[in-house]
Amino acid sequence: MNAQPTPAEAATGIPAGVFCAQDYEALAAKALAGATMAYIAGGAGRDQTLDANRAAFGQWSIWPRLLRDVGAGHTRLSLGGPALAHPLLLAPVAFQTLVHPRGEIETARAAHATETCMLASTLSSFRLEDIASAGGPTRWFQLYFQPSRDATLALVRRAEAAGYGALVVTLDAPIQPASLRALRAGFRMPADCVPANLAGLPAAPATAEPGDSRIFQGMMRTAPGWDDFDWLRAQTRLPVWVKGVMHPDDAAQFVQRGAAGLVVSNHGGRSLDGAPASLRALPAVRARVGKGTPVLFDGGIRCGEDVFKAMALGADAVLIGRLQVYALAVAGALGVAHMLKLLREELEACMALAGCATLADIGPDCLLPKPANAESPQRAADADLH
Amino acid sequence: MNAQPTPAEAATGIPAGVFCAQDYEALAAKALAGATMAYIAGGAGRDQTLDANRAAFGQWSIWPRLLRDVGAGHTRLSLGGPALAHPLLLAPVAFQTLVHPRGEIETARAAHATETCMLASTLSSFRLEDIASAGGPTRWFQLYFQPSRDATLALVRRAEAAGYGALVVTLDAPIQPASLRALRAGFRMPADCVPANLAGLPAAPATAEPGDSRIFQGMMRTAPGWDDFDWLRAQTRLPVWVKGVMHPDDAAQFVQRGAAGLVVSNHGGRSLDGAPASLRALPAVRARVGKGTPVLFDGGIRCGEDVFKAMALGADAVLIGRLQVYALAVAGALGVAHMLKLLREELEACMALAGCATLADIGPDCLLPKPANAESPQRAADADLH
Amino acid sequence: MNAQPTPAEAATGIPAGVFCAQDYEALAAKALAGATMAYIAGGAGRDQTLDANRAAFGQWSIWPRLLRDVGAGHTRLSLGGPALAHPLLLAPVAFQTLVHPRGEIETARAAHATETCMLASTLSSFRLEDIASAGGPTRWFQLYFQPSRDATLALVRRAEAAGYGALVVTLDAPIQPASLRALRAGFRMPADCVPANLAGLPAAPATAEPGDSRIFQGMMRTAPGWDDFDWLRAQTRLPVWVKGVMHPDDAAQFVQRGAAGLVVSNHGGRSLDGAPASLRALPAVRARVGKGTPVLFDGGIRCGEDVFKAMALGADAVLIGRLQVYALAVAGALGVAHMLKLLREELEACMALAGCATLADIGPDCLLPKPANAESPQRAADADLH
Amino acid sequence: MNAQPTPAEAATGIPAGVFCAQDYEALAAKALAGATMAYIAGGAGRDQTLDANRAAFGQWSIWPRLLRDVGAGHTRLSLGGPALAHPLLLAPVAFQTLVHPRGEIETARAAHATETCMLASTLSSFRLEDIASAGGPTRWFQLYFQPSRDATLALVRRAEAAGYGALVVTLDAPIQPASLRALRAGFRMPADCVPANLAGLPAAPATAEPGDSRIFQGMMRTAPGWDDFDWLRAQTRLPVWVKGVMHPDDAAQFVQRGAAGLVVSNHGGRSLDGAPASLRALPAVRARVGKGTPVLFDGGIRCGEDVFKAMALGADAVLIGRLQVYALAVAGALGVAHMLKLLREELEACMALAGCATLADIGPDCLLPKPANAESPQRAADADLH
Repeated sequence: MNAQPTPAEAATGIPAGVFCAQDYEALAAKALAGATMAYIAGGAGRDQTLDANRAAFGQWSIWPRLLRDVGAGHTRLSLGGPALAHPLLLAPVAFQTLVHPRGEIETARAAHATETCMLASTLSSFRLEDIASAGGPTRWFQLYFQPSRDATLALVRRAEAAGYGALVVTLDAPIQPASLRALRAGFRMPADCVPANLAGLPAAPATAEPGDSRIFQGMMRTAPGWDDFDWLRAQTRLPVWVKGVMHPDDAAQFVQRGAAGLVVSNHGGRSLDGAPASLRALPAVRARVGKGTPVLFDGGIRCGEDVFKAMALGADAVLIGRLQVYALAVAGALGVAHMLKLLREELEACMALAGCATLADIGPDCLLPKPANAESPQRAADADLH
Repeated sequence: MNAQPTPAEAATGIPAGVFCAQDYEALAAKALAGATMAYIAGGAGRDQTLDANRAAFGQWSIWPRLLRDVGAGHTRLSLGGPALAHPLLLAPVAFQTLVHPRGEIETARAAHATETCMLASTLSSFRLEDIASAGGPTRWFQLYFQPSRDATLALVRRAEAAGYGALVVTLDAPIQPASLRALRAGFRMPADCVPANLAGLPAAPATAEPGDSRIFQGMMRTAPGWDDFDWLRAQTRLPVWVKGVMHPDDAAQFVQRGAAGLVVSNHGGRSLDGAPASLRALPAVRARVGKGTPVLFDGGIRCGEDVFKAMALGADAVLIGRLQVYALAVAGALGVAHMLKLLREELEACMALAGCATLADIGPDCLLPKPANAESPQRAADADLH
Repeated sequence: MNAQPTPAEAATGIPAGVFCAQDYEALAAKALAGATMAYIAGGAGRDQTLDANRAAFGQWSIWPRLLRDVGAGHTRLSLGGPALAHPLLLAPVAFQTLVHPRGEIETARAAHATETCMLASTLSSFRLEDIASAGGPTRWFQLYFQPSRDATLALVRRAEAAGYGALVVTLDAPIQPASLRALRAGFRMPADCVPANLAGLPAAPATAEPGDSRIFQGMMRTAPGWDDFDWLRAQTRLPVWVKGVMHPDDAAQFVQRGAAGLVVSNHGGRSLDGAPASLRALPAVRARVGKGTPVLFDGGIRCGEDVFKAMALGADAVLIGRLQVYALAVAGALGVAHMLKLLREELEACMALAGCATLADIGPDCLLPKPANAESPQRAADADLH
Repeated sequence: MNAQPTPAEAATGIPAGVFCAQDYEALAAKALAGATMAYIAGGAGRDQTLDANRAAFGQWSIWPRLLRDVGAGHTRLSLGGPALAHPLLLAPVAFQTLVHPRGEIETARAAHATETCMLASTLSSFRLEDIASAGGPTRWFQLYFQPSRDATLALVRRAEAAGYGALVVTLDAPIQPASLRALRAGFRMPADCVPANLAGLPAAPATAEPGDSRIFQGMMRTAPGWDDFDWLRAQTRLPVWVKGVMHPDDAAQFVQRGAAGLVVSNHGGRSLDGAPASLRALPAVRARVGKGTPVLFDGGIRCGEDVFKAMALGADAVLIGRLQVYALAVAGALGVAHMLKLLREELEACMALAGCATLADIGPDCLLPKPANAESPQRAADADLH
């Protein structure tokens, strides 16, 4: 654990200067060491997919609608299990002690307080059992395939025993290209940031032979395949979601093989640098799988309007990643809970102004694409006047 | 009232450095406190709709035409009532004492001097009767539905009695998300900026119960519905316009229910941040309601070419919001009158060069869309040379 | 005349640091007073059309072609009169003593030395007869309609007598909106910059009555009409070209009424701010008038590739405006001649690499439009690396 | 030779701060004199094609694919000769002693060490025989047509004798317009940078007559034609590739006349400034020549994702130009070898994440075009928050 107290340690309440959920980002940049912030904020490689994730939201406008009755409005939904109070899920984030000494324990408390479904990471700093104890009733477990099926199965059994309601298997990062931003900032993962869940599990086998590719015959040798997915499905009664689906053909394949639901995600821009924006892939995935399969969205959400747009383009709910970490870094459980409250109210205000009383009212006809020539010299001309 | 004299107090004439209507913007930025300017200039949330409003004008070019006879040209029009000298209307702006101690009284005097139709706000710093006395013969009253129909009706009756020629009911801001720019600048509405028209009217009822949504069951509980619009129409012989229409389906509904006309507006980017540019919505609204219904445009106009573009895309006339406030802040009635004169001449010069002798000559065939690849590296390359 | 010697006075040769024709722009910015440079470089209003003129070139790429024999290549052409050595014409520019004490005389000498057709302006600082004497055999006279037909006719007769080979009547600026850039820089036309050709001609009649529009009943009262164009055509045997044509309908009308040729131009962005880029209008004009009518292009040319693109999109030749002034300011006749030589060689090199041996080989199939998504985050990402 | 030791002289290993292949660019900018870096990094004219080459990669995204088995993955390919270990070829680069005293000798050693096919330039600082001795078994010779066929043939015979496996005749730069960036930086080619291969060959004949065009009758007089290409083909049994093909019609013509393969290239933006991005031309060339003709790609590659995109759009392999020079400047043979290793692993990681086990799996369906409105105000808005 990180012995050094974070700024949040001294905090006794909501920090000043937070007017919207995204404001935790700027505060985190001040609270964290530069290299740590670079690691969290950065994406793989040159941040191209990271940037694309954000830019994609700007390609859509939301139609305001008038005089609709939303007095009985709410944000409840079901994803196949117990009803959720709102569609904001806490994305699985590894090694949360990197930003707060009590890491995932604080996050779990915030999830509980805000009726939020939390996805605990295989690579959490605390054991999944401890996270379960700290949090509320709604929790899912994010699973990485381990080098051996025995090790994978051990994690599944523990998650079942600890009352996790679903498994979310992340498949989009068999290789995780480094973040150039983090490397240039000199980031190194602290020695005490270790995956508590994997203690005692066997290490990955030795990699490539001389002459082999460090990538193909090395890192990818133990990468899972479709048979591993089928095997996993057969080992558990828990619903198995898949995280990292971008291509509609993969989406269709997972549905056919019994996935409980899909998470459209490019790992927050932390895997293939050059992958499309998550929001760009979402409509095609939804179109392919139809209405029968729940689809979550992950990638770049910073405000309620972003949530609205993702849902309009096909998502049933969304995962909140970096904002979660920023709020945790700034103010622990209180920060995460506050961030979630702000984000939810931003979503509700957006729904109200768009005339949507429930999540089911949010559809593609709520959006209007920006014209292709939307960036004009007009704004530059205005700038001259000031 | 604001006891502190504004810079305009000492002014004895047209300020130096004003070469076009928009130049009042830069002068206002100097004359006003930073937080006040942020509040006025900013939009809701992240200013996305505010920026889109401006950028939309840059997506269109105006065809110059040669040798057309415009020697008998004029800008007269009718919006169902008495003829107007020109199509520039003063948008309803709340709390004008924020920028000038005599606020709406000065604005009304400028309207009178320039034969301009002024829309007085429900939330004006002065009573609607006082504004009526100060101004010219052409004035409309902007109405916000009050928590009770009795209170709403009281305002209607007073507007009728004071000789307002039309009601313009604003429907696009049942919730008004805060401006992050204003919040960050530390803006707070001064205590003496209060809605003079609402003195004595009952306050809004207590809002949401514990567990309710602060948005849906709180702020939206007393929001008006379609029945309220029908009720209002039945209470008065004044023509009832609707301000804030963006979606063509809403537009059609209002026409069917007897609206006298529509104002395409997104509240100057101060309501739903993420709404399309007003100019983007305008052609669709005009196409839906046909030629029979007058349509006004509001959102981002800073120069005569902007007015021309809005009219070419379907507007019968336009509302001037922020420029009005900037000119008022800088030079009171004289400033507003001067700004209107400049803007009108900018429009007339644009009409002359586009070969349009009357407003009726301004149509979609006067415009050419910018190509989608209009932003090129060329300009950046040029920049290197200087 | 400007008594104060310009930097060019002391110059004894080609200035250092000129590697391409456009380099005269940066040197002029250093040689001229800031306000003067703002007046010359700026466009009407907010420079939107000025910027569009430049940006339009960036929307096209030029196909390189291999192994074509251009060893007999040349740039000769005919525009209905004597053959021209190359398609670069010197645009009519008023008041050239603003930048050089011998103004148009120097320009005429440069035209002579480089076998360039010069268009002398009605508003030249020197008399058209003096310009004729100083220059070479190929010269056209740019005509502004005067308030009276007698005055106009007097100019025509003088141009005929002085051996000008064509009249180019400029019709796109009956009103010339001020340049905000020049106004803000404090530019005023020096008192000694007067139109030598108009000495003794009657002044414009008094303008608008009280209550009249300063634009419609004022400035536009004496603007010419179609009958004036027909009248002019009937007064002279000189070919009458029209400068300022942008809309294809106007173009067709002029051809029908006997114009010898057209100049697609928006007055270098100095007339209607918001007009399309000249290059954007060019293909539509060419398509409308067919191959039978010569079409010149004016607007934003800074290098040989720009000339090539204009010719590929329909121009027979091009006018060079601002570069002419910049070179004149920097180094007088020598500068203008050098600039023309550089520009011609840039064009020839471009032709050679595009496999075009003659101007007739340059056509639309030499170009490729840039894709609409051509501006990418890639370049920004690269920038981070440096 | 350059007597002054470069920074690489003292280097004993991989330089610090290189996290990806492109990082050699920033290090080279520090290691080289400013003018030299400007010459290497710059393109012809205003760098428009140079910039377009880079920007074109940003117009495409790469689909990530899940669970595909790439454990037997590799990057082997054949271009008609012996199998190549990977598709990264070292582009022909002239005068490499400009950046390293042992220039092409070092490059050849790096090629050998990394199983890379090197293309030795006609204009190399060392004799082609010396380069051949220093390098590995796979080398091609880049040929410029000389003023006389005898001189050209002499080079061909020497290349054959030295064991070069193919001729790559470069045809896109009969004129090479100067780089304004290099000129402004004051770059001059050092006197000791001379083409070792051309020692003893006759100089080009005297150029244009008085009155002739310096371009058409001068530089282009000795430019090769289609008959020269046919002649060359007939002189040698080596496969003859053509470098510099952009237009599909030229591509088809070369295939018909027996070219062994094509290199789509605009000379790295160093020839016609205004030519399209190489990546823009590539799909059209591939579509025209079909699958039967090998096509290489050259222009702007900086990372593995760029390689992947070029191959997906039709290339069989790619040439690495500027990165080669940057790495050579920084760390000699070790630098070039390291850069190639990094670039190859970047490609392999990209293939793995895109689910491609072999180069044959990389096709157009691996890519997704960016939407035309991809650049949004969103990112600017985010910037305000930091």
